[in-house]
Amino acid sequence: MTAIETLEEKACFGGVNGFYTHESTACACTMRFAVFQPPQAQVGRVPVVYWLSGLTCTADNFTTKAGAQRVAAELGLMLVMPDTSPRGDDVPDEDGYDFGKGAGFYLDATEAPWSTHFKMRSYVTEELPALIDEHFPTKGAGHRSLFGHSMGGHGALVLGLSEPDKWRSLSAFSPVVAPTQVPWGQKALPKYLGDDPAAHAAHDATELVKKHQHPEPILIDQGLADGFLEEQLKPELFEAAAKEAGQPLELRLREGYDHSYYFIATFVEDHLRHHAARLG
Amino acid sequence: MTAIETLEEKACFGGVNGFYTHESTACACTMRFAVFQPPQAQVGRVPVVYWLSGLTCTADNFTTKAGAQRVAAELGLMLVMPDTSPRGDDVPDEDGYDFGKGAGFYLDATEAPWSTHFKMRSYVTEELPALIDEHFPTKGAGHRSLFGHSMGGHGALVLGLSEPDKWRSLSAFSPVVAPTQVPWGQKALPKYLGDDPAAHAAHDATELVKKHQHPEPILIDQGLADGFLEEQLKPELFEAAAKEAGQPLELRLREGYDHSYYFIATFVEDHLRHHAARLG
Repeated sequence: MTAIETLEEKACFGGVNGFYTHESTACACTMRFAVFQPPQAQVGRVPVVYWLSGLTCTADNFTTKAGAQRVAAELGLMLVMPDTSPRGDDVPDEDGYDFGKGAGFYLDATEAPWSTHFKMRSYVTEELPALIDEHFPTKGAGHRSLFGHSMGGHGALVLGLSEPDKWRSLSAFSPVVAPTQVPWGQKALPKYLGDDPAAHAAHDATELVKKHQHPEPILIDQGLADGFLEEQLKPELFEAAAKEAGQPLELRLREGYDHSYYFIATFVEDHLRHHAARLG
Repeated sequence: MTAIETLEEKACFGGVNGFYTHESTACACTMRFAVFQPPQAQVGRVPVVYWLSGLTCTADNFTTKAGAQRVAAELGLMLVMPDTSPRGDDVPDEDGYDFGKGAGFYLDATEAPWSTHFKMRSYVTEELPALIDEHFPTKGAGHRSLFGHSMGGHGALVLGLSEPDKWRSLSAFSPVVAPTQVPWGQKALPKYLGDDPAAHAAHDATELVKKHQHPEPILIDQGLADGFLEEQLKPELFEAAAKEAGQPLELRLREGYDHSYYFIATFVEDHLRHHAARLG
């Protein structure tokens, strides 16, 4: 059995919210993650919704600020909240919040020096689900959904469209939908992946959706007072590509809301109900 | 009009969550606080529930972690979340988390050097409500309730029992109910108030309730896995004194829950409904 270390476990809405570490093979470092086990997990196996956080975040932000445990406890959903990058003194980094630590972009880097540790795609799609299924009472493969925020919304869309059989449903808050067309992605993708345009396109939801669709409608919430909307997010690009490709999409534009956890907390219940309806 | 400076205002559950600063007369320094205005405040005046945080906290902890805005938005309650002490380079402090900055104990200090700035009782009961009523659409005096956590639960009980006409209802999470009998209070009260036992008793809910009761039932939630329960909290002392004095009290002991915001988030809805029922 793969070892995990329990950092803390706390009672929360009748369930248990915990933080854990383990030695990640994919990322070649110690990784920290959070899990909320709903009360239903005390008496049986439950489906899991994986959350992918945005730039600068750790396993803490969504766990402490989104208020998601209340809804997950009602719906019988486990929540798993990984970190956003490899961590530790051995892991290379750069100045700036939008590349390196805290900015793993949920891809497997191919370029040195990043390729040794920055394997967040393998981590989120392979290693972490296997670890969770080993240590927690989950229903396992076929009973997982995926959502995220900003860079994590990018991760949810890219990973979910690439392997639709792995994730029962997808949703996102304020996602980076077209990284090849915006500064965050134009900085990160060449550094992590090199210069091959095909590699970039494979990590761009707006490009991917032209070739791979998900059978379930994708739910996206986007605040219209989001300071990143025009330069980095551009949901209209994904909306147009999804329409053209026949990908069902519910894009909800929310007047007055910004990029913060006040926005996420306001609408997280809708997202969890969206996933619960598909997870059965 | 007394000036306040808006640091940020963000859409949240159909209302607005903001952080503000102002020059406090009571505390002789710049004070920072948070306010959640529910959607109902856009069309009329609403009652206000004041939250008092615990040791080490600022205006941020409850505001970002408790999930209270969702319930306040439903019930039409404004939330006001002050800091836990005066702040700034001019404010004296000491090593340790349980005295000085972040540990104002909601009293008016009489001893030097603390008495210049540590006037949190006057701040919370006089200056802040006047400021809030001036700048936000509140129903004003007679439409305020008070709750808090740990040191802030102490504050809610002491201020509420001392002036029951000022606060329509009271509640607390894991309160320090008998500071004269536990280490936190035995350290702080003499330093802030000197050696007069009567001054200490006036800031001890278990002593106060023998002389002053509140007409409404007091709601207290206490986790049984709280690491501070036996040494610092001792709710049974308040329970016995309240019973003897005829103070209605609902003390709920929660198996498995600790002192954290996971506990507060789990039961904050009950507390806000308790206050809303009295605020009408």
